[in-house]
Formats: sequence, structure tokens, C-alpha cells
Amino acid sequence: MRVIELHKSVTDSNDRDAEILRQQLESRGILLINLMSSAGSGKTTLLERTITDLKDKVNIAVLEADIDASVDAERIEALGAQSVQVHTDGMCHMDAGMTAEGLKAMDLENTDIAFLENIGNLICPAEYATGASRNVMILSIPEGDDKPLKYPLMFEESDVLLITKTDTKPYFRFDMEKCVERVRFLNPDIKIYPVSAKTGEGMEEWEKWLMEQSAIIKGKVK
Amino acid sequence: MRVIELHKSVTDSNDRDAEILRQQLESRGILLINLMSSAGSGKTTLLERTITDLKDKVNIAVLEADIDASVDAERIEALGAQSVQVHTDGMCHMDAGMTAEGLKAMDLENTDIAFLENIGNLICPAEYATGASRNVMILSIPEGDDKPLKYPLMFEESDVLLITKTDTKPYFRFDMEKCVERVRFLNPDIKIYPVSAKTGEGMEEWEKWLMEQSAIIKGKVK
Repeated sequence: MRVIELHKSVTDSNDRDAEILRQQLESRGILLINLMSSAGSGKTTLLERTITDLKDKVNIAVLEADIDASVDAERIEALGAQSVQVHTDGMCHMDAGMTAEGLKAMDLENTDIAFLENIGNLICPAEYATGASRNVMILSIPEGDDKPLKYPLMFEESDVLLITKTDTKPYFRFDMEKCVERVRFLNPDIKIYPVSAKTGEGMEEWEKWLMEQSAIIKGKVK
Repeated sequence: MRVIELHKSVTDSNDRDAEILRQQLESRGILLINLMSSAGSGKTTLLERTITDLKDKVNIAVLEADIDASVDAERIEALGAQSVQVHTDGMCHMDAGMTAEGLKAMDLENTDIAFLENIGNLICPAEYATGASRNVMILSIPEGDDKPLKYPLMFEESDVLLITKTDTKPYFRFDMEKCVERVRFLNPDIKIYPVSAKTGEGMEEWEKWLMEQSAIIKGKVK
């Protein structure tokens, strides 16, 4: 496993860089997913379960972004999947230049789906395009159903919302209906999948969506 | 309840502004506490319980900082405590100028302890002095014991770590001993209080610390 220390991108044209990176990846049939959430919402656990469930169907690689440590990349590697850890020099988000630099350290030849596990932060990552073809965000039950009210941008920017840790629902005041309503108000087109990576509840639908998106990207390479 | 829209501070001298604000507040016997954590870790719930427990002993006011909405300020006001909501114009942290502007909208005449409930974000708020006399951070059990490894700065900058939602411990893999060890490695002097605002477990020790700090600040006004 490689650890890379990143520094602020020098370019001012992040949106353009993101578009170039996205096109490069799609032309190779690679679906890059930008996975965003607050710290501790279960991004790595969700990826562990997804990789395990889909390992006979697709090759998944993970770019782990953190300010420090490499515990997440180690967890992904333990499953036999490719993982690269990037450190962001204290920065609270990933941009397209940083993502491209991290991906350079990966062997993408046989990769179907690459996840960028963004910095654990419900705010800043939503402001920066990364080059991903799809944005997926996680909100976990313990965080509360009021998060769409307080941090609207990420909900607006995401194609999918995974509501995770549904197995802990009996333990928390979390109004699923109210939460979904708040999210749909911000983003009528977003797909919402309540899942538990622990019990497996709801994982099938999410994984079906993922496989479909991979097929769409591969279908473009003709 | 007032809602204030904040914009980026124009000053480059945040540390100096913070020091001036801290001295102004302390000269009036007011303890300002900067309460930081990830989104959804239970800052408002912790404050609700603390205000309820201490309401016969001290006057507590809360400055609620969010990107949008005012649900937290409404919860604090429902307890009869003073609360002002500030909106941060999309920004992921509070600085000293923003804090001073928010406090201007409060009646601090009879306030003993003012809390700044910072933006829910485990990263950026730790980088900006706010003018608070003490930094207190929350890590909730569902977020996981690896957070000190991944987001070290906030643990380094805090005087107190509240490990919240201890009532949910049976539900999560959270190694308390390992977590405390990781935190102490970053910050040997930090006070650590495991608490549950739901059951009241551990609240007494935290509230004792809070009352002591208020007495220290008031003792300086001579």
C-alpha cells in the first residue's frame, strides 16, 4: 500500500480539470465514484461490504483520502482489493488535481469501479468537483434526520444518498420519512437507499445501481 | 431568536482578534466555550442536558453556528436559555470576527457561560481561534475510536474531550481504552469525560469541570 502526501493544487480551473479527468477515466470504461460523508458515518464499512458482495463481478479499487493515518486503506487491502492512501496536507477536501495525482499511483488497467473515499466532512468536499462520474453521499442514522437542513449542498450535489447503519434505528430518534422529504426538497432526482452494511439490509439495491452505472460507463467505450 | 448571516472576516489577524475577544469576555467574567465536533455527534443534545442540569446555578447562552437552518437555536430557546443563530455563508468554520459579530447580538449582561456551538466539522474549526477561553470537543461512540488517528488537530487543540452517546456502546465496536490512548498520545493534558446526555451517565463530572472553569474566569475579575 502506498501513502502519498498531497498539497494544494496549483490550478485555478478545478472544474475543467475535473471534466478532463472524468473523460479520461470514462474513455477507459472506469467508473469513478466520489463517496462523501461526515467523519464516522461508515464509508469504509460500506465499501468493505460492497467489495465483498461484488468481488466476483467487478474489480473495485479505492483511493482513500485522509488528513493522517492509513487505517482505512489497510482495511480495504485486507479484502484483497487495491487501495491507495493519500494525505491531504491538512486540507478538508479533495479536488480534481489531488484525485488525479492519487489515481496515478494506482494500477487501473483491470479496474471497473474506483471509489474516492473523500475526507470525512459534510461540508467542504461538496464544493469541489473531483473528476468522478457520480457523487454518492452517506448519512448515518446516528447523525440525525436534520442534516439536510443544516448542510444542504452535499445533498444537492449527490446522485445517491445512502442512509447507513439502519440496524441502529431502534436506538436513535431518526424520522426516515421526514429525512427523505427534506432531501427530496433539495434534490428531487436523488436516489435514496437505506442500508445496513452490518446486516446487509438494502445492500442489494445499492449494488444493483452501482453495477448499472458501471455498465453505462462501459457502454460509452465504443 | 435572531438569525444572522455572516460573511468572511476581512481581517488577516484572526489570532490577535481572538485574543482581544477572549480578554474582553473574561474581563466581564464570561466564560466562552468553543464546542466543536463532527456533524451529528450530539452537540445540541449535550447542551440541552447541561443547561437543564445547571439552570439553577448559572446562566448559559448559546451561539449556534450553522450553514443553514435554525433548528438547534430553537431547541435551546425551548429550554428558556438565550440563543442566537448565525449562518456562515457556506463557510465550514467560525473565526474570531464571526464569533464577535454573533455575540454582539446577545445580551451577555447576565451570562456566566456562553457556548459557541461551532459548525459540525471535525477538521476546519480546529484551525481557527474563536476568542473562546476553552475548547471542548465531542466524539460520539458511533463515529468510531479511530478518529484521533485521522483528525488529530482538533484533539490537540481541545482542553476537554467529551465521548458522547455512551448508552449506545453495546451497539458499536468502540474500544474506549484504545481511543483514550490515541487521544492522550496527541494531547497528554486533555480531560476526557465519557457521557450520555440520554441517561445522564458522566454528566456530573463534566458539569463540575464547567463550573470550576466559570469560577476561574470570574476569579480573574478583581
